[in-house]
Amino acid sequence: MKFFVPLQSMQNQDTIVALATPSGAGAISIIRISGPEALEMGVSVFKPVSKKDLRSQHTHTVHLGHIIDDARIIDEVLVTIFKNPKSYTGEDVLEISCHGSPYIQQEIIQLLLRKGCRSAQAGEFTLRAFLNGKMDLSQAEAVADLIASENEAAHQVAIQQMRGGFSNEIAKLREELLNFASLIELELDFAEEDVEFADRVQFEGLLLKIENVLKKLIDSFATGNVIKAGIPVAIAGAPNAGKSTLLNALLNEERAIVSDIAGTTRDAIEDELVIKGIGFRFIDTAGIRDTVDTIESIGISKTYEKMQQARLVLFLFDANDYHDTYVTLEVEVNRIQNKYPQKQVLLIANKTDLLDENRIHTLQTKFPDAILISALNQDGIEQLKEKLLSLVNTGVLSSGDTIVTNARHYDSLNKALAEIKKVQQGLQEELSGDLLAIDIRQALYYFGEITGQVTNDELLGNIFANFCIGK
Amino acid sequence: MKFFVPLQSMQNQDTIVALATPSGAGAISIIRISGPEALEMGVSVFKPVSKKDLRSQHTHTVHLGHIIDDARIIDEVLVTIFKNPKSYTGEDVLEISCHGSPYIQQEIIQLLLRKGCRSAQAGEFTLRAFLNGKMDLSQAEAVADLIASENEAAHQVAIQQMRGGFSNEIAKLREELLNFASLIELELDFAEEDVEFADRVQFEGLLLKIENVLKKLIDSFATGNVIKAGIPVAIAGAPNAGKSTLLNALLNEERAIVSDIAGTTRDAIEDELVIKGIGFRFIDTAGIRDTVDTIESIGISKTYEKMQQARLVLFLFDANDYHDTYVTLEVEVNRIQNKYPQKQVLLIANKTDLLDENRIHTLQTKFPDAILISALNQDGIEQLKEKLLSLVNTGVLSSGDTIVTNARHYDSLNKALAEIKKVQQGLQEELSGDLLAIDIRQALYYFGEITGQVTNDELLGNIFANFCIGK
Repeated sequence: MKFFVPLQSMQNQDTIVALATPSGAGAISIIRISGPEALEMGVSVFKPVSKKDLRSQHTHTVHLGHIIDDARIIDEVLVTIFKNPKSYTGEDVLEISCHGSPYIQQEIIQLLLRKGCRSAQAGEFTLRAFLNGKMDLSQAEAVADLIASENEAAHQVAIQQMRGGFSNEIAKLREELLNFASLIELELDFAEEDVEFADRVQFEGLLLKIENVLKKLIDSFATGNVIKAGIPVAIAGAPNAGKSTLLNALLNEERAIVSDIAGTTRDAIEDELVIKGIGFRFIDTAGIRDTVDTIESIGISKTYEKMQQARLVLFLFDANDYHDTYVTLEVEVNRIQNKYPQKQVLLIANKTDLLDENRIHTLQTKFPDAILISALNQDGIEQLKEKLLSLVNTGVLSSGDTIVTNARHYDSLNKALAEIKKVQQGLQEELSGDLLAIDIRQALYYFGEITGQVTNDELLGNIFANFCIGK
Repeated sequence: MKFFVPLQSMQNQDTIVALATPSGAGAISIIRISGPEALEMGVSVFKPVSKKDLRSQHTHTVHLGHIIDDARIIDEVLVTIFKNPKSYTGEDVLEISCHGSPYIQQEIIQLLLRKGCRSAQAGEFTLRAFLNGKMDLSQAEAVADLIASENEAAHQVAIQQMRGGFSNEIAKLREELLNFASLIELELDFAEEDVEFADRVQFEGLLLKIENVLKKLIDSFATGNVIKAGIPVAIAGAPNAGKSTLLNALLNEERAIVSDIAGTTRDAIEDELVIKGIGFRFIDTAGIRDTVDTIESIGISKTYEKMQQARLVLFLFDANDYHDTYVTLEVEVNRIQNKYPQKQVLLIANKTDLLDENRIHTLQTKFPDAILISALNQDGIEQLKEKLLSLVNTGVLSSGDTIVTNARHYDSLNKALAEIKKVQQGLQEELSGDLLAIDIRQALYYFGEITGQVTNDELLGNIFANFCIGK
C-alpha cells in the first residue's frame, strides 16, 4: 500500500550535517551527521585517543578524541556512533559533542562540508526517519510539536502522539476497514456467482463504530487547538478594576510563566499563564469595555476580533464602583452577554475586602455565579482558578484520550468521515460492491494521509519546513 | 606538595545537575549529571527500552528510553553513561540527550532536583575535573578560553593550553628546579660536614635557562593578550577620509566577521575584523583627529584612553584633501607621531584613484611608507592587509610556541622570575643553602599557583565564577 513519491530535492544518499543544539555559546554543542558516509566522514576528521577504527566500533558507543583538519586540532570531542538501522534516522549517524563555542561549531561544520557532507535542511533528519520507516508522519509531526510545547497539556498531547497513540487509533480503524474492503473486493472476483463474503450487518456496525471514533477525534480538535495555543480568555473591565493585580495574584499562586508574548501570530498585549499545566492566554479588552456604547463605531478593530476568538470572557469589575443596588452593573452584564451570546461570561467582583456585609449579600443574591475576590489580599484566587479549570475540559491531562491538535489531521479526518458516510449511504441503497469499494478506498486514502502511507513532495515539504535545522 | 583547601561551598560528594547545551529551543539538549549518585539518579528517572539496569552497563555506552516522573512520561531520550574515572569530571557522569524544548529541559532538571541532585554552580563540572586530577588549573582555565574564543589565533592558543602545552613547559622547569632544591636541602642535613651535593655551576646554568624561559613566557603575554582580545587598532582620520569604505573593502576581501561589539568590556563604536585568523579591533578616533589642537582640553576622555590602548595607529586620509606639496599633511603626521611616540603609525592615503601621476609620485617620495589605496575600487587592500599582519607576530599561529594569555599566569610568572633572580643573586653572594632553599621554594610555589598545585578557595572561586553553568 506504500506509494511514496521520491523527494528529488532531498536525496537520501547524501550524508547530511547540522548543528543539533541551540546556537550560541554553552558548555557543549552537538553536531549531527547522518547518511551512508557518516562513518567515513567520522574517520576523515576524527582521531580517536584509542587509535581504533571508528567503523569497527559497536553501535551506541562513545569515543574520545580530536577533530583534526590536517595537522590542526580543532577541538577535543566525544563522538557517538549509531549504526543503521539503530539510529534516529535509521541511517548511520554520528554525533560529535564539542565545546560549545560558535567558532568551533562553525569550524567543524565547515570542515565536514569540505569533506563532502551537505548542510541538512530544516527537519531533514526527521524526514529521513519517516522515509526510513522509523516513525509515521503523525509521529514526525509530533516531534516538532514536542519541541514547541510550552505547557504540560501541550507537552503530554505531543508525547502521546509521538509515541504513536494517535497513529494506533488510526491504524486500528484502517485495518478493520481494510478487512471489509478486501472481502468486498473478493466478491467482485466472484461477481457472476452473486455471493456476499462481507457480512453487511457486521459491516454497518463497523462503519458506525468508525463514524463515532472519527467524530470523537474531530471534536477533540477544538480542545487540541486550545491546548496547543493556550485557552484564549478575554478580560473585559476598566483599567482600574485590577486586572494586573489579578494576574499577578494568579501568578504568585502558581509560580507560573508570565510573558509578554511578542511575535507575528500573537499580540504583544497578551499575558500567558499556566494553571495546572493548562495554558491560558489573557486578552486585554479594556478598550472595548470603556467604549461599550460606541463599540460598533470602532469597526472591525483588532481587539474586537480577539474578543471573538476568546473561549471565555472574564468581566472583572471593582465592586465598590457601583451603587448599593448594582443596577448599573446588571445593565452592563446584560449588554456584554447580549453582545457575545456564544461566550461564557464569568463575573469577577474585585476589591470585595472594601465592601460591608450587606453589600456583599446583595451582590451574591443578584449575581449568584459571580466570584468575589480581593486580588490585593489574594482572597478568592483559588476559587477563581478552579472555576477557570472547570470551564475547560481538564480531563485531557489524565484521560489518555487521543487529542487531535494538527489542522492537517483534522482536515483528513473530516474527509475520511465524509467518505464513511457515503459508504453508509451506499449500503442502505444496496449499491454494488464495486461502487462501495471506491468509497472505502477513498476513506482508506485519507487515513493514509495522516500516517504518511499516502504522501507527496509538496505535503512533506510543507510539514518539514516548519522544523528547525538539525532536527 | 598538594595542599588543597577543601571547598566548603562546593561539596564534592553532592551529585550535581545542569543544562550543558545553550539555553533555548533546538533539536537536542543535553542535561549533565555528575557525582557519586549519578547512576542512581539515572535509575530513578530513566526507564530504558532494553529494561536493563543502567548500573550494569559499560562506560561510554548510549541507551534509549524514557524519562518518567511516576507514571508520567516527560520525554523520549538517550542516556550516555561515563563511569568514574573515565569521565570529564572523573566522577560517574550521565548525559541525558532530550528534545530541545525549554519546557522539557526544565521538567527534567526539576525532577532530578526533587530526586536529590543539586543545581551545579558555574564551572562546577570543570572544577571537579580539576579537583579529581583530570586536568590542572591552567588547563581548566583554557576550557573557558576555548569556549569564548572567536578567532583562529585565540582558539589555537586555548587548544594548546587545554592540551597541556603550557603546563608541560611549567612542569619541566619545576621538576628541574625541584631536583636542585632537594639536593640543596639534602646538604642541610649534612650541614656539619660542609658538603655540596648541588653543583653550583650547573645550578647557575639551570637558573639562567629558567630565567630565559620565564622571560620568553612573560614577553608572550603581550601577544597573548592581543590574540585573546584582538589587536586594538586606532583609526585617526576625518569622517570623510573613507573609514567605512575601507572597513567594508577589508571585509569583502576576507568574508570576515563585522560586528558592532556591545557590552561592558568593549565599546559599541568598535568594529572587529578577522584577517587570516588574527582579530583586529578598529577604534574610531575621528573625534580626536578633528580636534587635534585642543586634545588636551578634552581631558581624559574615553576615546583618548582607547587611543592609548591601541597597538597600531592607522592615519587614514583623503589624498585629495591636501595641496600638491603635502606640507600640511606632514605637519599633521608629525603631530600624531609626537603625540604617540610609543605607537606605530601607519599612513594610509585613500582615494588615490583620483590623483594624477605627479601627485602620486610626490606622495610616495615624501611618505615612502604610506600605503596608497582606493577603498572604493578595492585597490591596495591586499597590500594593507599584509602590512597589518606583518606588524603583528603572525608566527604564533604556526610556531607552536607557548603563549601566555591569562593575567593570573602572567602575574605568577613575574613573581617566579623575581624569586629566581633572588636565587641567582644569593648564589653570587654565596648565601648558605638554607637561605637559597627558601627562595627556591618560593619560586616553586609560584609555579604551583599556575598549574593549581597550590591553590585556595578564593582563587578557585574567582576562576570558576567566570565559567558558564553546565561546564
